[in-house]
Amino acid sequence: MASHGQDVTLLTVWASPFSMRAKFALLLKGIEHEDLPQDLDNKSKLLLESNPVHKKTPVLIHKGKPVSESAIIVHYIDEVWPETSPLLPQDAFLRAKHRFWTDFIDKKILDSLGRFVRSSDGGAAGALAELGDEEEGPFFGGGSMSFLDVMLAPYAVLIPGVEQVMGLKPASREQCPRLHKLFGAVAEHPSAKVALPPIDKLKEYIQARYGSK
Amino acid sequence: MASHGQDVTLLTVWASPFSMRAKFALLLKGIEHEDLPQDLDNKSKLLLESNPVHKKTPVLIHKGKPVSESAIIVHYIDEVWPETSPLLPQDAFLRAKHRFWTDFIDKKILDSLGRFVRSSDGGAAGALAELGDEEEGPFFGGGSMSFLDVMLAPYAVLIPGVEQVMGLKPASREQCPRLHKLFGAVAEHPSAKVALPPIDKLKEYIQARYGSK
Repeated sequence: MASHGQDVTLLTVWASPFSMRAKFALLLKGIEHEDLPQDLDNKSKLLLESNPVHKKTPVLIHKGKPVSESAIIVHYIDEVWPETSPLLPQDAFLRAKHRFWTDFIDKKILDSLGRFVRSSDGGAAGALAELGDEEEGPFFGGGSMSFLDVMLAPYAVLIPGVEQVMGLKPASREQCPRLHKLFGAVAEHPSAKVALPPIDKLKEYIQARYGSK
Repeated sequence: MASHGQDVTLLTVWASPFSMRAKFALLLKGIEHEDLPQDLDNKSKLLLESNPVHKKTPVLIHKGKPVSESAIIVHYIDEVWPETSPLLPQDAFLRAKHRFWTDFIDKKILDSLGRFVRSSDGGAAGALAELGDEEEGPFFGGGSMSFLDVMLAPYAVLIPGVEQVMGLKPASREQCPRLHKLFGAVAEHPSAKVALPPIDKLKEYIQARYGSK
């Protein structure tokens, strides 16, 4: 990994898709950083001071300045370190599309990841099918990871994790071919292997926290 | 107004703060456009086709391509027409701040504009006080309108409108000095006078739609 010596700290919770996104973007760009896991039941002074409005992870602290909210953090990372692995496309209309689907996914998932996974129309997965197969590669950015891919990558472990713990039939390849293609590529990606937790560890966590007793 | 001959259409609902934002950004930048008011009780084919996911206004259609969601539209406008009235600052950290407060306001207001206005801690208005008076000018962008100012401008008429119709004590200058300063400047701004409806017309609408019978 290239060392940028950039004074970057990331406050994270390992099982959170939002933390995974920020971590993944830093790894993709080879940004050296300190990962400071947070206990949300006993919030640290650093977390409270650096995100006084939401008091949530992730927070990226760069040269002493805090940036919160995962999509905003990934925008920031892409703007400060644009050279390696550019995430947002140059074209303004495509940038709008990446932002639109990110916003859509976040609104759906805030609603409930469970409902998102189960909903009869395929939820976000179904709607994302609409994005179609315009690109040659496995990613929404074509041959390389883009902004929307980073936003979706955590669900490559979280969706199967929730499905398995809740005993749901997995979303089929036919229902959401576009997501299946992306999730397959995410599973192979070297940075994703570091940024995302192993599915077994995640399932234990989901079981303990949300599963039936 | 400078004519750009850019083939721009905006689908709007006049009383919506989200439509006002998009309209205001186009006016600030002098982008010639056609404004197509929409009836949300009887949605047009054009609206359903150009925003099939949310079926909501505003939608900006530029050279036949639709962009939805007000913050994403204003990002798009700023990226396609960066020269006149640049809205997002150059500095990545400041850009993150503009995005953070936009996201915060939208989450709070989605919750309920009424609650936003009434909440005991001053709601978003209170939190925005935290932004302080770092800038010289009346705007969050200093002497000129910036991204966050455009996001907030519709509330210069909507907040007093809701307060007056609901018989609420108006949020005092002391409670939210930063917003008062912005709202005063918005009221004087020539583009705002076109983009925002007169408060009396808005009050009639709020009364008819949400007021006590």
